[in-house]
Amino acid sequence: MRVNEMCGKGLGFSEYTRFDRALHMILSRVNETDSEKISFDKASERVLSEDVDSNFDVPPFDRSAMDGFAVRAEDTFGADETEPKKLRVIGSIEIGTSSDIEVEEGEAVEIATGAPMPKGADATVMVEKTERRNDVLKVFEPVSPGRNLSPRGEDVEAGQTILKAGRKIRPSDIGMLCSTGNLEVKVRRRPKVGLAITGDELREPGEPLEKGEITESNSRTLGPAIERYGGISHRIGIVPDRIERIRAVFDSADQFDSLVLTGGSSVGEKDLVPDVISDLGELLFHGVAIRPGSPSSFGVVDDTPVFSLAGFPAASLIAFEMLVRPALRKMQGLKPRDFRICVEAELIRKINSKLGRRDVVRVKLEREGGRYSAEPVRVTGSSVLRSVTESNGIVVVPDNSEGFSRGSKINVFPLKL
Amino acid sequence: MRVNEMCGKGLGFSEYTRFDRALHMILSRVNETDSEKISFDKASERVLSEDVDSNFDVPPFDRSAMDGFAVRAEDTFGADETEPKKLRVIGSIEIGTSSDIEVEEGEAVEIATGAPMPKGADATVMVEKTERRNDVLKVFEPVSPGRNLSPRGEDVEAGQTILKAGRKIRPSDIGMLCSTGNLEVKVRRRPKVGLAITGDELREPGEPLEKGEITESNSRTLGPAIERYGGISHRIGIVPDRIERIRAVFDSADQFDSLVLTGGSSVGEKDLVPDVISDLGELLFHGVAIRPGSPSSFGVVDDTPVFSLAGFPAASLIAFEMLVRPALRKMQGLKPRDFRICVEAELIRKINSKLGRRDVVRVKLEREGGRYSAEPVRVTGSSVLRSVTESNGIVVVPDNSEGFSRGSKINVFPLKL
Repeated sequence: MRVNEMCGKGLGFSEYTRFDRALHMILSRVNETDSEKISFDKASERVLSEDVDSNFDVPPFDRSAMDGFAVRAEDTFGADETEPKKLRVIGSIEIGTSSDIEVEEGEAVEIATGAPMPKGADATVMVEKTERRNDVLKVFEPVSPGRNLSPRGEDVEAGQTILKAGRKIRPSDIGMLCSTGNLEVKVRRRPKVGLAITGDELREPGEPLEKGEITESNSRTLGPAIERYGGISHRIGIVPDRIERIRAVFDSADQFDSLVLTGGSSVGEKDLVPDVISDLGELLFHGVAIRPGSPSSFGVVDDTPVFSLAGFPAASLIAFEMLVRPALRKMQGLKPRDFRICVEAELIRKINSKLGRRDVVRVKLEREGGRYSAEPVRVTGSSVLRSVTESNGIVVVPDNSEGFSRGSKINVFPLKL
Repeated sequence: MRVNEMCGKGLGFSEYTRFDRALHMILSRVNETDSEKISFDKASERVLSEDVDSNFDVPPFDRSAMDGFAVRAEDTFGADETEPKKLRVIGSIEIGTSSDIEVEEGEAVEIATGAPMPKGADATVMVEKTERRNDVLKVFEPVSPGRNLSPRGEDVEAGQTILKAGRKIRPSDIGMLCSTGNLEVKVRRRPKVGLAITGDELREPGEPLEKGEITESNSRTLGPAIERYGGISHRIGIVPDRIERIRAVFDSADQFDSLVLTGGSSVGEKDLVPDVISDLGELLFHGVAIRPGSPSSFGVVDDTPVFSLAGFPAASLIAFEMLVRPALRKMQGLKPRDFRICVEAELIRKINSKLGRRDVVRVKLEREGGRYSAEPVRVTGSSVLRSVTESNGIVVVPDNSEGFSRGSKINVFPLKL
C-alpha cells in the first residue's frame, strides 16, 4: 500500500515530502478564479483582476487649499508686517460654485478652501495673513506662485493607473475608485471552499455525547479561517469513516474551487481520504515534513484541488495556514507567499526541531520597553486547541535548523489563528 | 468667536489640544455598547462581554493519541528489537465506539487514534513498534505510563475559563466554544456609526460635475474603515453647508453609538459643524495637534459622541485612525490602545515635525534581506488620497520630537488604510 510505503513503520522524516516541495506542487495545480464585475462600494477586501485607470483629473480643477484670497503671487512680493501690500477685493468664490471672475494686477478674490481658483490668480494668501476693510485688503506676507492651491490633477491625472491588478482593496482605495469615476471594478471571484469533516466519533454541536464521541469543531475553526483569507466557506458536514461516504463528498467537487477534508489522513486502518483521492483523481503527496500537520495530503479530483488535513484541531489549523492559505491567495490573484510582517523577538524558552522538518511553533508574543519576547506555548499534543488560542504568533523553524536556543533572536509572525 | 480664538490668526500649535489630551477626553465620554447573546458560529471577530467557562472536560474521556495497541505500560518494560515482549490481543476499539473490555496483565487491545482507552490500559504502543500474528503481539519498544494517550480534560477541564471578556474571537475560539458546549455567547453589540459628509461642492458618485464640484469620497473611505474596526457604518449622506441642514443630522443622534461628520470643521466661514455641536450639546475640543487632521473636533450631543473630522480625504482618514478607532475599540470592550505590532525600519528620507505636534507620516515599508526600510510617501497636500493608497505603514512622530534623520531606526506600524 502506497500510503504505508511513504509513511509507515521505520521510515524517517526524509520520506515525508519537504514543505517547500509540497507547497510548490500545490501552487502548480491551483488556478486563479475568474473575474467578476462588482460595484466599487462592495469591493472592500476584494482583489482587483485588472489595472484601474483614472477617468478624471483629481481634483478636476485648480482649487484653493486654504481659506483666504486668490491673488497674482507677484502682487504680494515684498509684503511684510510693517509694509503690507494693498489689493482690491473684486468678489468672492464659494465652495461648490464657479465664477467667471478674473483677477488682474492689484486685485484679489475672497476664496474658500476647495473652491475653484479664479482666472488670473496663481496663489492663495491665507486669511490669517491678511486684514480686510471693505474692498481694501492688506497682505502681510508674500506668497510664491502655486502656493496654497491644489492644481487640477494634483492627486491623480486622467488616464493614470491608480490601482494595479492583484491589489487587495483598502478603505482609501474605495474613495479613490469613486473619485476617479470607476464605479464598477473587475475583481477575482471569492474562491468557494467545500469543507468536509470525517470521523465516526463526531457529533454536531449540542448533540449529546456517548462515550467515545466528541463534538465536531474543525469545520467551525476552518470556516472562519477560510473567510478571513478571502474565501467563501461551505460546510459539507460530518462524513463517517466509510469509503462510499467519503467518495460521495467528491460528487460535488466541481461545484467548488477547492475541497478541504480533515481526518482520515494518517496511516491507520480508517485513514481513507488519501486513498479515495488517489482512486478518483490524482494524489500528489501524502505526508508533509511539517509539525504539526504532517499527515496532510494534496491531490486533484475533477480539476478541483483537494486538501486532506490531519483530524486533530490544532494540526488541521496549522496545516491550513501553511498549505491552504497560499492556495487561497493564489486563487484570488494575490502573491501566494506574501510580504508578511514579522518581528524580531527574544526567545524565552528553547525550541527543538529536526533537520528536514518544518516546525510551526505557537508562541506568546509580548512587548515591553520597546522589545518583543516570544514564549513557546506548552503543547502536550496536536489535539490541543488551547495551544492555538493561547498563542498570538507563530515561529517557523526552517528545515535546515535543529531549533533555537533560549535567548536567541528569532522572527515571529504575529498571527491570531 | 471661540473657534477663532483657539485656531485663528497668529496662534501657534500650542493652542491646539495635544493629542494625548484629546484622546483622553474622547475616551472619557465613550461607553461600551450593551451586550447581546449570539450563536457561537456567528461570533467570529466579535468581542466577548463576559468570561466563558467550559461545560465539559475536553477530551471528554481518556483517548488514544495514536493507532496501535492499548496496554499496561509495565508489561512493555524491557522490550527491545531483539527481545520483544509478547502480549495477547483480546479485542479492538474503533473510533467513535466504547467498550467494556478490560486490559489485564499480559494483554493488549487494538485501538485507533481518538478511540477511548479501555479500562486497565495506561498507554498506547504505536502500531509501527509492533508485529502482530493472530492474537499474538510482539512489542519492540517499551512505553511509559500515559504515553500516546490524551487524558480526559487534557485540553480543557470542565469549569475552566477558556476565553476572557474583552477577547476578540478568532477562528480557533469558535472551535473551542463548540467543543466546550458554549453554543451561545455574550458579545458587545457592534457600534453603529452614522456618517455624514458636509460640503456644498459634493456630488454622489456617477453624478455629472459642474466646475467647482467634486465626487464625495469620504463616506466611501470611512465606511469600510468603520466596518474593519468592528463597527456598523450607516451612511447618512451628503449634507449642504447650511446650519439648519447640519443641525438636522443630529435629529437622529440617539439612533447611533457615534456620529462622524467630515468637512466644515476648520476655521473658514462655512466651518459650521463645531458650532452646531457646541450649540446642541457640548464641544470638548476643536483643533488637535496632529498632522494631518488638525481641524478635528469632538463633542457629545444627546449622549452620543460626535467626531467632526477634516474634509480632506487623507486628513479625515488619518484623523479617523488616530481618534475614532480607539473610541470604536472602547465601545466594543477592547483596550483602546491596543498591543499593536510595530517593526523597526531604517528611514530612507528624513522626517520633519514640530515640537508639540503629533505627525502621522505615511510610509512605504519594504523588507529585504531580513531588514525593513521605510520611505515616507511624498505628500503635496492633505487632499491627496494617493499618499494613503501608496503607503503600507505609518510612522507616528511623538509630540516631543522634531522628527527623524535619514538612516535612523524608527518604529513603523504596518497598516493598509
